[in-house]
Amino acid sequence: MTNRERDVAAIRALVDIWHRSTAAGDVAKILSLMSEDVVFLTGGRPPLRGREAFARGLKQLLETHRVESKGEVREVETSGDLAYCWTNLTVAMTPIEGGATTERRGPTLSVFRRQTSGAWVLVRDANMLTTDAAELELKIDNLERELMADGPGGD
Amino acid sequence: MTNRERDVAAIRALVDIWHRSTAAGDVAKILSLMSEDVVFLTGGRPPLRGREAFARGLKQLLETHRVESKGEVREVETSGDLAYCWTNLTVAMTPIEGGATTERRGPTLSVFRRQTSGAWVLVRDANMLTTDAAELELKIDNLERELMADGPGGD
Repeated sequence: MTNRERDVAAIRALVDIWHRSTAAGDVAKILSLMSEDVVFLTGGRPPLRGREAFARGLKQLLETHRVESKGEVREVETSGDLAYCWTNLTVAMTPIEGGATTERRGPTLSVFRRQTSGAWVLVRDANMLTTDAAELELKIDNLERELMADGPGGD
Repeated sequence: MTNRERDVAAIRALVDIWHRSTAAGDVAKILSLMSEDVVFLTGGRPPLRGREAFARGLKQLLETHRVESKGEVREVETSGDLAYCWTNLTVAMTPIEGGATTERRGPTLSVFRRQTSGAWVLVRDANMLTTDAAELELKIDNLERELMADGPGGD
C-alpha cells in the first residue's frame, strides 16, 4: 500500500464510521470525525459553523427522529494534508413518534485535513441534498390545507 | 511570500479571472481555468462532467443571456497539489432580448489541483446556489412553523 492508498482508505473508513454512528445515534463518535472549526455549507441557509453548533443541531434532531444515511463514495483524492471526497448521499428521517419517512438525496463534496496526530478529520462540507420537488409540493399542499382548516385565529 | 501565500494568491486570481471572463463572455478563457475531467455538482441534477459538457452548456446560455457573477472569497486553503476555496456567489442572468434578471445566490465549495506546469485548475465544484427545491423547503419550514404556532392549544 502506498501512502496515498493508505490515506484514501482512511477517508473511506471515516465516511463509513460516520454513517454507522449516525444510525446508532452516537453523537460523540461523529464529533470525533470533524475539526472544531468545521463548516457545513448548504443552499438557502447560513453556514453551520463549528463542532458545537453541529452537535446541538444533531442532538435536537435525534430527540425526535431516527436518522439513517447511506453514502456511495464516488471518489477520494488526497495530496499533502488535504483530501476531498465526492459522495452520493441518501438521508432518511423518520419521526420516533410515528409518521412518514422523509428522504433527501444528492451529492456531497467534503474536504478533510490530516491533523498533526495523523488522523483525518472533516473540515468543510458541501451538502447538495434535495427532496423530490413533487414530494415537496405535496407536503406544501397538505400543510396549506391544514392551515386553512385551522383558519384565522387558530391560536 | 511563502509558497503557501503564493498558492492562495494564485487561486484568488483564478477566481477573479473566472468572474471577469464570464461577464465578458470569454468562454475559451474560462475553459482554460478547469481540468478536462472537471465535475460540477449541484442539487437536484445529475453531475455535469467534463470541460466539453460545461462549454456546451455555457455557450448555449450565453446565446440568450448576459451572465454576471460576483464572488466573495471566504477562504482558500492549500496543501501539496490540492486547494479548496469557499465562496459566496451571486449569479445574475438577464435575457438578451429583454426581461427580468434572475438572481441566484449561495455558497460554492471548489477544489483545485496544481498541474505539472505549476498552474492551478478547477477540478471539482459544489454549487449550492438557491434552487427552486431549496426555496420550496424554506416555504415548508415556514408553513410548519406557522402550524406549530397555531398548534393544539395555541402556542
